[in-house]
Amino acid sequence: MAGCELDSLEETLETHLPEAELREVKRILFGKQTEKLDLPACAVDAASERNFELKGYKFEATQEQLRPPRKVRVGLVQNHIVLPTDAPVLDQINAMHSRIGEIVEVAAMCGVNIVCFQETWTMPFAFCTREKEPWTEFAESAEDGNTTHFCQELARKYNMVVVSPILERDEQHSTLWNTAVVISNSGNMLGKTRKNHIPRIGDFNESTYYMEGNTGHTVFQTQFGRIAVNICYGRHHPLNWFMYSMNGAEIIFNPSATVGALSEPMWAIEARNAAIANHCFTCAINRVGTTLLFGFTAHHDFGHFYGSSYVAAPDGSRSPGLSRTRDGLLVVELDLNMNRQISDKWSFKMTGRYAEYAEELSAAVRHDFKPNIVKE
Amino acid sequence: MAGCELDSLEETLETHLPEAELREVKRILFGKQTEKLDLPACAVDAASERNFELKGYKFEATQEQLRPPRKVRVGLVQNHIVLPTDAPVLDQINAMHSRIGEIVEVAAMCGVNIVCFQETWTMPFAFCTREKEPWTEFAESAEDGNTTHFCQELARKYNMVVVSPILERDEQHSTLWNTAVVISNSGNMLGKTRKNHIPRIGDFNESTYYMEGNTGHTVFQTQFGRIAVNICYGRHHPLNWFMYSMNGAEIIFNPSATVGALSEPMWAIEARNAAIANHCFTCAINRVGTTLLFGFTAHHDFGHFYGSSYVAAPDGSRSPGLSRTRDGLLVVELDLNMNRQISDKWSFKMTGRYAEYAEELSAAVRHDFKPNIVKE
Repeated sequence: MAGCELDSLEETLETHLPEAELREVKRILFGKQTEKLDLPACAVDAASERNFELKGYKFEATQEQLRPPRKVRVGLVQNHIVLPTDAPVLDQINAMHSRIGEIVEVAAMCGVNIVCFQETWTMPFAFCTREKEPWTEFAESAEDGNTTHFCQELARKYNMVVVSPILERDEQHSTLWNTAVVISNSGNMLGKTRKNHIPRIGDFNESTYYMEGNTGHTVFQTQFGRIAVNICYGRHHPLNWFMYSMNGAEIIFNPSATVGALSEPMWAIEARNAAIANHCFTCAINRVGTTLLFGFTAHHDFGHFYGSSYVAAPDGSRSPGLSRTRDGLLVVELDLNMNRQISDKWSFKMTGRYAEYAEELSAAVRHDFKPNIVKE
Repeated sequence: MAGCELDSLEETLETHLPEAELREVKRILFGKQTEKLDLPACAVDAASERNFELKGYKFEATQEQLRPPRKVRVGLVQNHIVLPTDAPVLDQINAMHSRIGEIVEVAAMCGVNIVCFQETWTMPFAFCTREKEPWTEFAESAEDGNTTHFCQELARKYNMVVVSPILERDEQHSTLWNTAVVISNSGNMLGKTRKNHIPRIGDFNESTYYMEGNTGHTVFQTQFGRIAVNICYGRHHPLNWFMYSMNGAEIIFNPSATVGALSEPMWAIEARNAAIANHCFTCAINRVGTTLLFGFTAHHDFGHFYGSSYVAAPDGSRSPGLSRTRDGLLVVELDLNMNRQISDKWSFKMTGRYAEYAEELSAAVRHDFKPNIVKE
């Protein structure tokens, strides 16, 4: 352990376990091994120079007779904030743009088709403070904000779909939202999708800043597959993942910001369970580092954001995670044919009895619902 | 590794990792450490003599001002079949009764309040064969079968709630069911609950033997807490766990029979995700050993049932698992107060937007449902 935080669960196991045991432990913990992806030397060198971790893996599907493989490369970006949280707002945003720009350039070298950044990526994670200023100044228009324009340039330049989770200011409705802007590889904005479930955890309450999203479970048809975005706390809600899947999502991104003491043992469980239960791929992204917030009353130090971004597959396997401590880019090649193959094998959608659940749930949400409890 | 199967994931980690790394790895993988439970020497000795593993752990909740702790001890039993699968049916059943009887006696010594056996515990796991005889001869009446009478005796003798998953023969309707009989510690039958989701996985199809259950999501109020039983393949369906929880379940048992090559990487994910998502305890039980089936056409050797029974808590933590290879009894003390404490902290039920999901799901199950897909 270098310092007080473990760098990587997987590397710790690899360092200490004998080979035969390691193979079995990894199979039980992580499923079928994900092969390493060969990445170009220029990308490896650039990542090293720019001081971020670069890892590549691939999930392979069975070759079919009638469909060619549907291979797509996703890029998951996790990073620290760049400037101190008391630097001028615009300087902080510009520094984040610059950092993300140099990571996305490496993603392009690696052939990434769809890149996703962490939750509210242009700003420090300040929703623990309860104060509005200067944090709400980070909010931008989803359609016309500088950050969307910046991402549109990236998308056009690299022929890449960009998922850009920001704090959105909706001038028309005088509201803020926690929103992911989805930009096509053409550079056009495909649309936006808002965080459906807003955390109220202990004394931490994000509804101080924005409320539950009103964009439902929109799925975006891109050139590289149908994608959806389940933002942060929404990963605790199986119905949220499920409804994105029912609307056709093949890959569900989960851009997050969460700290070790609170959620780390759940991190490897929830997105992976969603991939299994819904016969789709899920991409869990978390920021890294400890954000110090100056001069505010609540949670100056929210804790350690533990990174560990990973991709989970519908067959129960998952990629290794990025580091718990470093900026990183995880490049994963998926063959989307795996989704239907696993669905045909396991049949969860056919055995799900959803019509009966729709009825049961409709009854259960009523205030005068009588639970089905048998007593002696 | 003793032989070709790893005995235990947890023990492998404990054997090889240095102490500081082990502590962090266990925290990340398993959450807050579950303390060991002191078990009486007579129980430890008896388990050793009777050749089964005995492990004990406890999950503690915070002390409240207005509610006393609600401590309950659950017992999870995993075991091999006793006789060869071509022995006379009644001999096989009696041998299983005898084996379970000696394990439950030890559970009683350990103060277990609620015991649960593995899926269709009186028989070999034969649903992979597709043949009916002699397997359907193992089916019994839930109300009046020998096995229910046997369990009622155990319940009365030890003041223990018994969850007895059997192959049920329903003479009235001329049907078979995969059913858990729930017997009160008084010895009275509280009721029965049937497997809601029936696997059709590859060429393996249990609906050859029984169909989807018609008992809904019944919860049983026992002296020791409200319990429900999600049988085997139902664990892949998040809505199934959810609806038991909506009906008030504080502990959901998942008696199963599943093999390594098929499901092992999912095993540690699904029941645990359910405990997290529903603010309740879940108890995952799997049989052990390799069941050889004689003289039948499909799947003589279904594979290795990997045991690894465990208990998951609503705070994201879980107990270590029982062995992957041995008969075992896992005794876990739960403080049911933890459920409400975690619910009050994380608020998933309040932030779940279930009324909206009821509407969305009702729409999504229609044959003419139009998914919400945005295109460029």
